[in-house]
Amino acid sequence: MAFLTTVCAEAVSGSCLGREPGRPGDGGLAEKGRSLEAMPVTMEAERTLHQKEMTQLGELAAQLRVDAIRCSTRAGSGHPTSSLSAADLLAVLISRHLRYDWTDPRSRFNDHLIFSKGHASPLLYAVFKAVGAITDQELVDTYRQFGSRLQGHPTPALPWVDIATGSLGQGLPVGVGIALAGRYLDQLPFHVWAVCGDSETAEGSIWEALDKAGHYGLHNLTAIVDVNRFGQRGPTELEWDLDTYRRRVEAFGCQAIVIDGHDLAAIDEALGRARQATGPTVVLARTLKGKGVPEVENQPGWHGKPLKPEVAERAINALGGVRQIHVTSPRPEAAPPAKAPAAQAPTAEAPPTEAPPAAAPAAEAPPAEAPTGKPPTMPRYDKGAKVATRNAYGEALRALGSRPDVVALDGEVSDSTRADKFSEAYPDRFFEMFISEQQLVAAAVGLQVRGYRPFAATFAAFCSRAYDFIRMAGISQANIALCGSHAGVEIGADGPSQMGLEDLAAMRAVQGSTVLYPSDAVSCAALVSQMVDRKGVNYLRMTRGKYPVLYDNEDSFPVGGSKVLRGAEDDHVALIGAGVTVHNCLAAADELAREGVKARVIDLYSVKPLDRERLLDAVRVTEGRLVVVEDHYPEGGLGSAVLESLADLAEPVRVTHLAVRGLPTSGTSTELMDQAGIGVRAIASAARAALTR
Amino acid sequence: MAFLTTVCAEAVSGSCLGREPGRPGDGGLAEKGRSLEAMPVTMEAERTLHQKEMTQLGELAAQLRVDAIRCSTRAGSGHPTSSLSAADLLAVLISRHLRYDWTDPRSRFNDHLIFSKGHASPLLYAVFKAVGAITDQELVDTYRQFGSRLQGHPTPALPWVDIATGSLGQGLPVGVGIALAGRYLDQLPFHVWAVCGDSETAEGSIWEALDKAGHYGLHNLTAIVDVNRFGQRGPTELEWDLDTYRRRVEAFGCQAIVIDGHDLAAIDEALGRARQATGPTVVLARTLKGKGVPEVENQPGWHGKPLKPEVAERAINALGGVRQIHVTSPRPEAAPPAKAPAAQAPTAEAPPTEAPPAAAPAAEAPPAEAPTGKPPTMPRYDKGAKVATRNAYGEALRALGSRPDVVALDGEVSDSTRADKFSEAYPDRFFEMFISEQQLVAAAVGLQVRGYRPFAATFAAFCSRAYDFIRMAGISQANIALCGSHAGVEIGADGPSQMGLEDLAAMRAVQGSTVLYPSDAVSCAALVSQMVDRKGVNYLRMTRGKYPVLYDNEDSFPVGGSKVLRGAEDDHVALIGAGVTVHNCLAAADELAREGVKARVIDLYSVKPLDRERLLDAVRVTEGRLVVVEDHYPEGGLGSAVLESLADLAEPVRVTHLAVRGLPTSGTSTELMDQAGIGVRAIASAARAALTR
Repeated sequence: MAFLTTVCAEAVSGSCLGREPGRPGDGGLAEKGRSLEAMPVTMEAERTLHQKEMTQLGELAAQLRVDAIRCSTRAGSGHPTSSLSAADLLAVLISRHLRYDWTDPRSRFNDHLIFSKGHASPLLYAVFKAVGAITDQELVDTYRQFGSRLQGHPTPALPWVDIATGSLGQGLPVGVGIALAGRYLDQLPFHVWAVCGDSETAEGSIWEALDKAGHYGLHNLTAIVDVNRFGQRGPTELEWDLDTYRRRVEAFGCQAIVIDGHDLAAIDEALGRARQATGPTVVLARTLKGKGVPEVENQPGWHGKPLKPEVAERAINALGGVRQIHVTSPRPEAAPPAKAPAAQAPTAEAPPTEAPPAAAPAAEAPPAEAPTGKPPTMPRYDKGAKVATRNAYGEALRALGSRPDVVALDGEVSDSTRADKFSEAYPDRFFEMFISEQQLVAAAVGLQVRGYRPFAATFAAFCSRAYDFIRMAGISQANIALCGSHAGVEIGADGPSQMGLEDLAAMRAVQGSTVLYPSDAVSCAALVSQMVDRKGVNYLRMTRGKYPVLYDNEDSFPVGGSKVLRGAEDDHVALIGAGVTVHNCLAAADELAREGVKARVIDLYSVKPLDRERLLDAVRVTEGRLVVVEDHYPEGGLGSAVLESLADLAEPVRVTHLAVRGLPTSGTSTELMDQAGIGVRAIASAARAALTR
Repeated sequence: MAFLTTVCAEAVSGSCLGREPGRPGDGGLAEKGRSLEAMPVTMEAERTLHQKEMTQLGELAAQLRVDAIRCSTRAGSGHPTSSLSAADLLAVLISRHLRYDWTDPRSRFNDHLIFSKGHASPLLYAVFKAVGAITDQELVDTYRQFGSRLQGHPTPALPWVDIATGSLGQGLPVGVGIALAGRYLDQLPFHVWAVCGDSETAEGSIWEALDKAGHYGLHNLTAIVDVNRFGQRGPTELEWDLDTYRRRVEAFGCQAIVIDGHDLAAIDEALGRARQATGPTVVLARTLKGKGVPEVENQPGWHGKPLKPEVAERAINALGGVRQIHVTSPRPEAAPPAKAPAAQAPTAEAPPTEAPPAAAPAAEAPPAEAPTGKPPTMPRYDKGAKVATRNAYGEALRALGSRPDVVALDGEVSDSTRADKFSEAYPDRFFEMFISEQQLVAAAVGLQVRGYRPFAATFAAFCSRAYDFIRMAGISQANIALCGSHAGVEIGADGPSQMGLEDLAAMRAVQGSTVLYPSDAVSCAALVSQMVDRKGVNYLRMTRGKYPVLYDNEDSFPVGGSKVLRGAEDDHVALIGAGVTVHNCLAAADELAREGVKARVIDLYSVKPLDRERLLDAVRVTEGRLVVVEDHYPEGGLGSAVLESLADLAEPVRVTHLAVRGLPTSGTSTELMDQAGIGVRAIASAARAALTR
């Protein structure tokens, strides 16, 4: 495998890409090529690099260091020392191993570079300058400034950034999702490189990721861990105990390569081995935090602190001054991988052990963004038949499977969420994530990076396990569908740990999210079919039990809409529910009707966005008498959504809010809904009380 | 180490504890003592048990199996097969190793039994019957019934249950917290036994827990993993690959003991070794799911399914029928441990490597519940001085450190959260959890099990990483303080990944939670001092930047209260904020005052519970003109709290709700607050607009 490294000869003068010459602190190229310290490494690196290439790489590494210092000092904040430790790793990676066409970041043949240690953004942006993606001026003048796309931590506001990082322990798990797509779906030879910090290996999510990488034999995934032994407030837990890191990595099914992270030849050899490996690789690079700046190198107390201008100037001079070297990364390969599928195939239980035999050769396959399958035939249901919405989820998802870009994942509960209907029909596009909800969501985010439309399901309660990942998916503006079954006290005997009573609040508060909560199978299937093409984080809340189908198959359920199930222009009161409480509202309306009370019943299946117009209608007709009923804690859920929507209304509105106010126990659905005061009797009582006000 | 096992001789007749004789299905004691299958184990168990004891243990295990079947079949739901696999483990544990006075569950000398695999509640409750804690009737008649304390998954509604389990991967991490208390604070010889499933080892939190157990040398912690190789929907990822389990466990710093989980002698020997170990132990027990019931044993498709009555009857007969054996567990030891502190001491960086030298001998020390230190001298601040609330947090926490029951934890950001003020003053009561927020919260929950008052801090954004743990802490009714710093766009240049813009919504929706958000140092310190003795999950939201002290040190800030900073009986409009937006509201009020507009300013420092009376006052005075301003996404936060509180008010209220509606970027605090429309100008504009309505 031979990669070309182009180090622009004119770079020294700063004229290579027509950029301005160096800024203050530019001390020319004196003192470059400082000797690399010898450090204990477990393997002797083969010295395949010629001296000239070594010098060029050293120059590039120095430029990355200088630029990381310059932009952070100029900004007055940022993490230069965390950038300095990884500069040599990145210099070798982008020059010789990362196959990337920087002029075409949307090319599906590009490798993926994930900065899991997102706080080292000065280094990432210095890389972007070196490859010509951004100018020196943008780097130095706009880093961390208001309005700049060079934010404190990377986000996809930059076209070369797949996902937002900055919450540690997330980049690698998302990389697993991208690599799953590469190996099993795209079948393209691109490689995923995740640059990780050592501190973040304390996050369990890193081990969920390595476990899945090993299980799925992701030979196309390499984690590069920058073991600089310092966290934010002091030494890391393992410091430079590289042997423990190695044993952990190997026990989790990955190849470990321990190197001196400042030995350019060793780095080169390790990254080459990683790309050729038959399974996932973790390069454990022993480094010095602040490497190259003696005043801060290998010293505590320098995390997240920019160098003062005078220190920066000295450091830049010592590093040889400002450079304008331009690197051309190796070109992406468009051909399918020459090597055989990974040696470490998962067990027979895990479906996608081998490439689906019917799939077209990858290089000729259309991109995932342009599905070519026949239009889905969505399931149909008989009005009045009792069907669980989770069943409709599984059946709708199976129907959507006719689109080749639809993929599904589950957290080892697919027989409960009914995702198994999809996995049985399309085993090659289903990924079992076992009981690791963080990885479940991260894999979904990774799959959508490659243009797939992932549906990830578990119990609503256990979506909370991945809340930080969902939060970050919102910041990444990732397009994913999350499906939480077994919501609310309705589940019955299993008790509160399984109930999911805070998910509406949590999911509504995710930036750019959509929150859906259908009451019947028809509306559920209709919403699932819309989720597939919606932007952002789309959450579907599902009920365990079977309830009557309320709607005709021809009815439409636009996101942002609602349905009026009972209603007239002289209604006395409006009963507003979603999901299971719609059924309770209907029964209460029937009870009230027998007393001569006319109750409008509104199904707010779209919790976010909410159908404000329909609510205003109800307010007008009922003179503001609303009863909102939800199988959720009182804070932040459906009731709050209604109240937020009507907050600035001039007309008086009085909302009676029925929700689960105590700590539930076990029991039947009816017992628990009655106990919580969201059952038929409580709704009817609340309506009567509203009329007497 | 000799433990007494008392197997009541009269038990067979059912008269031992005056309980009723066996229920239907009682087939006598025929066929007991089935031969145990030989299985590959890594060590040859020493056969120290006499044959009589073996027979008694076998009898007990059979009883546990029978009872697990009986209660779940009667309930029509539950997880009998997950109980059957672990019955032998529990029979040996409760008879010979668990030192527990079942008549005194509050004794601080008791061992702790944590059912991390909470779905195996039939087994746990069968244990409770065997030790005489509950009656056979309660077990069989009330399991999973409405109103019963024997819920589908265990909760502390039962006095022998420390924490709620049922969300997998949480029991062991909480056990780490209990063991931290035992080793470093109580210095008592109790042992923590966490019974885990194999499926839950896919959760990263399990590895966070083992990592911390190893780091802190928790010789008083044993995880018993029931490796029955089946999850819910099929085989687990590793099935019976016990060697991989072993290598993972050892790489994470724990002793691994691999056994046949149905070999009573091997179990006994392993548990004995675990108690004598100098570090944490993981017993990896190869078992058969459904063990003892041939119709379901070692077969997929039986997770979470009760046996049909006729199958149950055959199984109970085959197992020798219903028994009423009574077990007396070994007595707790009150003396301090004879052995030296654990061999695997953490690094010098981690503070509590050794027992604090000044501490009194543990057995004589008062229980953690009764603090004896001098009353704290809380910090005082000068009005107008600029102080960050996170600084006040650190200083108040340090002051509270005079109470010996106050402990603190941090997620490797103590120099940012200012928890380092506590760790410097009380290193023996500070636990560094590094970057593992799930374990951070779990350890806090474990410490409160032992009566300590933990304060756990990280960035507000990263509290989301532990949301499932916080949710479960609410169900456990755990008394913990969580402190999230760097909330909102106010943090500035670091960008959205670090901001914490959904925490109010998420934390408000936790059952029984308290949510506090002080605007200045005085109120922050006052609230911290109240959090220490409050029940439930208490969340404190903190701001990064320095803002003027607004209050006198003598002012009081009751939880559930608020402050009126500007106010008269003829106010035109009310500006309502919390935290940083209080300062913006004050500046806006000043601007409005110059125009002759009288704006009331309310500091809603207690977001949950909320001061409804003060809001009603404001509604009355301003004729319902409220402007609510929050540095949070619009859903579920302060605005929703205000709206929920006023939902059923008869008087017209029009709330203008200013919140962070887009995706923020980097910038200065002022730039970002202005961009989000929560700055001074936006507030003043909103107030003016409210007046023209």
